[in-house]
Amino acid sequence: MAFDPMSLKYNDAGLIPAIAQDAASGEVLMMAWMNADAVARTLDTGRVTYWSRSRQAFWVKGDTSGHVQHLVDFRVDCDRDCLLVSVNQTGPACHTGRRSCFYTAVRAGEEVELMQPMAPIPPSA
Amino acid sequence: MAFDPMSLKYNDAGLIPAIAQDAASGEVLMMAWMNADAVARTLDTGRVTYWSRSRQAFWVKGDTSGHVQHLVDFRVDCDRDCLLVSVNQTGPACHTGRRSCFYTAVRAGEEVELMQPMAPIPPSA
Repeated sequence: MAFDPMSLKYNDAGLIPAIAQDAASGEVLMMAWMNADAVARTLDTGRVTYWSRSRQAFWVKGDTSGHVQHLVDFRVDCDRDCLLVSVNQTGPACHTGRRSCFYTAVRAGEEVELMQPMAPIPPSA
Repeated sequence: MAFDPMSLKYNDAGLIPAIAQDAASGEVLMMAWMNADAVARTLDTGRVTYWSRSRQAFWVKGDTSGHVQHLVDFRVDCDRDCLLVSVNQTGPACHTGRRSCFYTAVRAGEEVELMQPMAPIPPSA
């Protein structure tokens, strides 16, 4: 069946959550939001593209930071109201410089920081 | 730092998305929603507990289906507006009987079903 981005279920703001998972390691990297156009752009370009709620603009992941997400596989859940994108992640996915946004665990009632920021990627020669 | 469920950022309905990931395989199983009480119950009981938006009630995963999620690790993201729970999943996570809710891929513009429902779990002797 041909896929139509309009067949997904979006919230009242026209957005659907998208989970990004590292294609190689299986690590869950981040969760952000897409609108129907961002879904279409992600599939058309192979560059994972979110909708920035704070900036109210397309957010082609890595366009500013260089921390690009290349799409490996695109999944829709049973209720068609959540997406899972498998990606090749360049550098950190998190704006804090950590590989994943999920770097804080709760263990025995305490918050525990599990990751440090990655070393900066040297600029291309 | 002691963790306080009220320190998370909830949406206008008082909910936060929670991604469930299989602790052993790394497979992303599902995404559902928690409110602050569901967060506290999940941490207190070790049984992953969501808030059912359709039923407007706590949803202790597996209480009806037997497809329990035992909490292995609980993570908070950088913006404190998304959760990642690492779980030991009994049987299928998806209400369709599939291991994961993300069983539909979009490849070359077509929807492709990647998983079949699991065999039923025999009732305990």
